[in-house]
Amino acid sequence: MTEESIIKELTLQCRKAPLQNGIGDDCALIADQQVVSTDTMVEGVHFDDRLSAEDVGWKIVAVNASDIAAMGRAPNWATLNISVSESIKPEWIASFARGMRMALSTWSIVLVGGDVVRTNGPIIISMTMGGIGRTKPIWRSGAEIGNGVFVTGNLGEAAAGFFEKNNEEGLRRLRRPRPPIEMIVNLGSIGIPTAMMDLSDGLHKDLLRLCEASDVGAYIDADVIHKGPAIANIKDPLAYQTSFGEDYEFLFTANPDMEQLIRQVARRYRVRVTQIGKVISTPKEGPRAYLRGMDWPKSLFQHFSK
Amino acid sequence: MTEESIIKELTLQCRKAPLQNGIGDDCALIADQQVVSTDTMVEGVHFDDRLSAEDVGWKIVAVNASDIAAMGRAPNWATLNISVSESIKPEWIASFARGMRMALSTWSIVLVGGDVVRTNGPIIISMTMGGIGRTKPIWRSGAEIGNGVFVTGNLGEAAAGFFEKNNEEGLRRLRRPRPPIEMIVNLGSIGIPTAMMDLSDGLHKDLLRLCEASDVGAYIDADVIHKGPAIANIKDPLAYQTSFGEDYEFLFTANPDMEQLIRQVARRYRVRVTQIGKVISTPKEGPRAYLRGMDWPKSLFQHFSK
Repeated sequence: MTEESIIKELTLQCRKAPLQNGIGDDCALIADQQVVSTDTMVEGVHFDDRLSAEDVGWKIVAVNASDIAAMGRAPNWATLNISVSESIKPEWIASFARGMRMALSTWSIVLVGGDVVRTNGPIIISMTMGGIGRTKPIWRSGAEIGNGVFVTGNLGEAAAGFFEKNNEEGLRRLRRPRPPIEMIVNLGSIGIPTAMMDLSDGLHKDLLRLCEASDVGAYIDADVIHKGPAIANIKDPLAYQTSFGEDYEFLFTANPDMEQLIRQVARRYRVRVTQIGKVISTPKEGPRAYLRGMDWPKSLFQHFSK
Repeated sequence: MTEESIIKELTLQCRKAPLQNGIGDDCALIADQQVVSTDTMVEGVHFDDRLSAEDVGWKIVAVNASDIAAMGRAPNWATLNISVSESIKPEWIASFARGMRMALSTWSIVLVGGDVVRTNGPIIISMTMGGIGRTKPIWRSGAEIGNGVFVTGNLGEAAAGFFEKNNEEGLRRLRRPRPPIEMIVNLGSIGIPTAMMDLSDGLHKDLLRLCEASDVGAYIDADVIHKGPAIANIKDPLAYQTSFGEDYEFLFTANPDMEQLIRQVARRYRVRVTQIGKVISTPKEGPRAYLRGMDWPKSLFQHFSK
């Protein structure tokens, strides 16, 4: 059974909930300006020996916090569900806990509860996280024709760490994603992004989702996508930058008049923000994202176990 | 590694949070009058072929809603994390979803999000649930000397379903726990219980936890504990009633003057409430719960797989 068909079955009744209050965005709204998000990491699927236990602890927090921030909220609480075998080593747990605590404290998130269960299968870690904010949440569906398309940070570095031998900078990005949460929450709090999401599945897939939710098209200029240190020496890094994922940077659209203000906020937090394209009206063939003058590279996505 | 040592390691830093705002009660407080709770069910550990997929879907909602109601809150949103193998049957998912939806709609809870992942291990289902209320939450720590000790419903029936052959009523209780959530939320909203929790591990263990949190003792009169239909023909059902769990009924303490009012609310919701004992001052040997004139039966707790 595919994940899509399982999700469809499980959410059969939930479709009656307004799109913006349920399944389909980075988070769901649960109360006045509060959002919740959840993510699972499975040993052998979402991590293997390339990630230490400490990396896994860091990453489960980072990926959830990234979803919360993508709504313009500040993450503030989390619960943890962890399934491990009887023979789990105390060192693994201690190291996982250390990585998790480092990330929780980096973004001022309190672990409020959880559940530990036994399994004879792989280690499975689920984290559910909540976030708050005073302004209205930023959904994927708000992109307007004429908006600029912006991304934070350097795309494709985690992919380089995954595929290239001895690419230390890339591996560091794969193991310890560091989404610029404070900067994005600040940008959200002053109402700059019209639509936003985090980049977990790669620019191509994620931008298409944003276009679909907003019912628009997008034109992207591949040359403008910044090449960070991990891919500086790679001949044709476009596939890494657009078609793998694990970036945990942010994709957002905003009125082009706001560019000055965006640069100002970005500078204050020392975060790179690049305008990589713009929002266009819905193409005849439906919401689409185009690369100017070329096709998108084919998807590089693979689970760790492959 | 034991669950206790894993939890200790994971919550190392969380101890600084006030007890009432973190790990150790049924739920954690996340904002003004809002609570969150999480629970995991593992195939072979928390369920086996005795539970249909529909039962599992019902039960994951019921056990979480029970935790929320035990704080005097009404459950209102949930997220679901489910780990299944590639070869999961569509019928299993459809049946699980049906059971989950029936329970969600019974208690007016909205599924707001979730995550489906692949595993080659057993099915693992985690649900995180939130609840709201206008009055202050009811913790385990508020029991006062002289309070009555009350329980809802019939204890020990799930145990009878687990251990006895062909005990259909018991099996029904094991498969479809139906905690009297509306009645307990109502009782909580008018501030009756001084301390409360749900009965998931059996009266003996759970009452001891309440006594420890409140730093009190308790005397229980075994004869008064009601014998429901599933244990009516069993000679000595005390071990089932006190030392197994899976009851998902509520245990609470209240001022004895409130008994009339409690009976009135209980009658309105057609829920059995029984005063089974009273709160006494902390015994010399520390917080303890005693059975009047006898010892507690030894623990019957076993996972499904044993």
